[in-house]
Amino acid sequence: MDAEIIAVGSELLTPFHQDTNSLYLTDKLNELGIEVRFKTIVGDDSVRLASVLRQALDRSQLVILTGGLGPTEDDVTRAAVAEALDLPLVEVPEIRQRIQARFASLGRPMSENNARQAFVPQGAEWLENRNGTAPGIWLEHDQTLLILLPGPPRELMPMFESQCLPRLEQRSSGERIRTRVLKVAGLPESEVDRRLAPIYTKYQNPTTTILATPGGIEVHFRARAKTAEEAKALADMLADQAETELGERVFSTHGETLEEVVGMYLVMKQKTLATAESCTGGLLSERLTRVPGSSNFYLGGVVCYTNELKTRLVGVPTAMLEAHGAVSRPVAQALAEGIRRRVGASLGVGITGIAGPSGGSEKKPVGLVFIALADERGTEIREFHFPGDRQRIRWLASQSALEMLRRRARGGPRR
Amino acid sequence: MDAEIIAVGSELLTPFHQDTNSLYLTDKLNELGIEVRFKTIVGDDSVRLASVLRQALDRSQLVILTGGLGPTEDDVTRAAVAEALDLPLVEVPEIRQRIQARFASLGRPMSENNARQAFVPQGAEWLENRNGTAPGIWLEHDQTLLILLPGPPRELMPMFESQCLPRLEQRSSGERIRTRVLKVAGLPESEVDRRLAPIYTKYQNPTTTILATPGGIEVHFRARAKTAEEAKALADMLADQAETELGERVFSTHGETLEEVVGMYLVMKQKTLATAESCTGGLLSERLTRVPGSSNFYLGGVVCYTNELKTRLVGVPTAMLEAHGAVSRPVAQALAEGIRRRVGASLGVGITGIAGPSGGSEKKPVGLVFIALADERGTEIREFHFPGDRQRIRWLASQSALEMLRRRARGGPRR
Repeated sequence: MDAEIIAVGSELLTPFHQDTNSLYLTDKLNELGIEVRFKTIVGDDSVRLASVLRQALDRSQLVILTGGLGPTEDDVTRAAVAEALDLPLVEVPEIRQRIQARFASLGRPMSENNARQAFVPQGAEWLENRNGTAPGIWLEHDQTLLILLPGPPRELMPMFESQCLPRLEQRSSGERIRTRVLKVAGLPESEVDRRLAPIYTKYQNPTTTILATPGGIEVHFRARAKTAEEAKALADMLADQAETELGERVFSTHGETLEEVVGMYLVMKQKTLATAESCTGGLLSERLTRVPGSSNFYLGGVVCYTNELKTRLVGVPTAMLEAHGAVSRPVAQALAEGIRRRVGASLGVGITGIAGPSGGSEKKPVGLVFIALADERGTEIREFHFPGDRQRIRWLASQSALEMLRRRARGGPRR
Repeated sequence: MDAEIIAVGSELLTPFHQDTNSLYLTDKLNELGIEVRFKTIVGDDSVRLASVLRQALDRSQLVILTGGLGPTEDDVTRAAVAEALDLPLVEVPEIRQRIQARFASLGRPMSENNARQAFVPQGAEWLENRNGTAPGIWLEHDQTLLILLPGPPRELMPMFESQCLPRLEQRSSGERIRTRVLKVAGLPESEVDRRLAPIYTKYQNPTTTILATPGGIEVHFRARAKTAEEAKALADMLADQAETELGERVFSTHGETLEEVVGMYLVMKQKTLATAESCTGGLLSERLTRVPGSSNFYLGGVVCYTNELKTRLVGVPTAMLEAHGAVSRPVAQALAEGIRRRVGASLGVGITGIAGPSGGSEKKPVGLVFIALADERGTEIREFHFPGDRQRIRWLASQSALEMLRRRARGGPRR
């Protein structure tokens, strides 16, 4: 079964917005052996959308439309689908009641605009939206299955997962695809490829892709087989070989994030953690506390943006700040050791650096970051020179701190 | 002139890659008053690409294709364009010489594959690529202008900027487009639409788009006119009317983020800020410090994930924690007032809540968050019940704290 995805929304034709839903949908469809052959982005214009839709009906067995199901005048997807298929729009009283009930539970009357959302093309089924007012639509037309989904990801994803995937699974007769992802820290993309190529080039299936992402180098092994189980076994076979080759550089074998892996090790070893951040401004603690259950290992920390607070909240000596400057090796160490002691944690992290765009100098340029990690055995301090803009420098600093934490928490030989 | 963009590449139909060139191209085209009406993504398949191209020729005066100009078998754009236009491919000796010279300068012989890159559809002009081997192609066909650009952004951007933009500028009718964006806090999308529809439906130009984003409801006003100045005036005229209607709900009139607006007000009023976060885990401080120059208003703060740290770092009384629990109105107040005092800031924010997925109870369910804002006049404490998962609850809590800060920092009547 070949699929295509049509994303509807004039904002997606501006320089400011990307269609990201199609990445999620492609991932889910691929698992069922369904390939996405086209993606089209069209504005909130019912004539253009109807014309795109007619082309899609000619060439694809599955057409997924995202967006344009809201209550406003701009939302034209329902009407355009009805027009392209020459079907009348009919009201579904149950949808109207549900939208009214949703508004009532929020203590507000239903806006008359929302009543539009109760209309669907004749013969269509509707899909419940547990996270918004816009219902989805499931419509079989000649040889084509059309699925209309709301644009907001938090509405689209659960709707697709619970109400579309099971039905698509039943009707897709083809092969199943399973992908394993390894994530690697501390090696450049080209080195990962050099070490893995002798292994993965032996196989046509799985196919192997190496990608550089903000969360680390990812290696994707994509296997196809008659059943999901066989595909999974194939992907696992190759991933296991790659993991053996890369060893401790592999931090994630089943898609976990670096912060999740750090949390897992800390909980396992019954260690606790505190942080003192300057240039990252709380990004490290924010990433650590994204992990559900992070209160089991993360106690807390401080963001000390001024010199005074480095002294007052973490006890960095004023003389040290004056002698070395806030962005320095001794201050990173004092932050890590100070926060560890004040909070009473097993591990303390200190980060100080220059994220830019201003504040850099010849001796201390933008991108210079010191990260220290203290525990009962001592303190490791590392100096980094990160490329990129403010957000990227902050991200790379948090990523490096997490990688230092992973190696320390995992145990084994010190570097 | 209406344009469309076709991105060619099978990797763009996987879950792992996005077409980003079109954002750059859209931005540049819009400046010339050229609207992008469609974006299509198609794999490295000459039959499918030729069919997409035929549709594009029917409906657009300008068609830009990106990618698929490389030397490999997968690179089908040249051949597909020639086929769709029924033109032979002819070799351009000068391109061949240049590619050979490029390889020679790298000390390598030209691969025979690269020879394909010297072929262009008959009648086409070629565009020099200073950063790679693939030349671009400029082709006028009937009423349509086709531009073929290489996929890598560092090859595409300079080629488009130097060799395409000046020529497009000459032939574009002279109309220019300008966009104004208002961002709104504290109103649902449908309510914004209900209040603005009577205003914006009076105009065909500017066009108005309302969208819900994580950073608030956005209203885009996009105006076209003979000159950039007139377009700007038109967009401003409608944006001003909308701003008057929505009043203080509008937090951003020129695209600023909520944290930027907060920072701007705080700097303007010479106020400083400190934060004490529990459930948001540093997200509020991280957002505040995304703003370049945030050290001018943000002093720092603490993330106190445990009760003990709420007492030790911010001075929340143990008895209060025992009597009311950590997630309570008095603790939010004590956090805001405590961090303000300890840091010596004009304003203190305290956040305590239950982000989930666990930790909720019947009395204190997941999503319950108390936010307090203290200044010299007193402390405002608000109770929220946020929907969604852990990340969304944390985001909404940070967003609400920023909105409370905005209103306080802006001044005017207290709520």
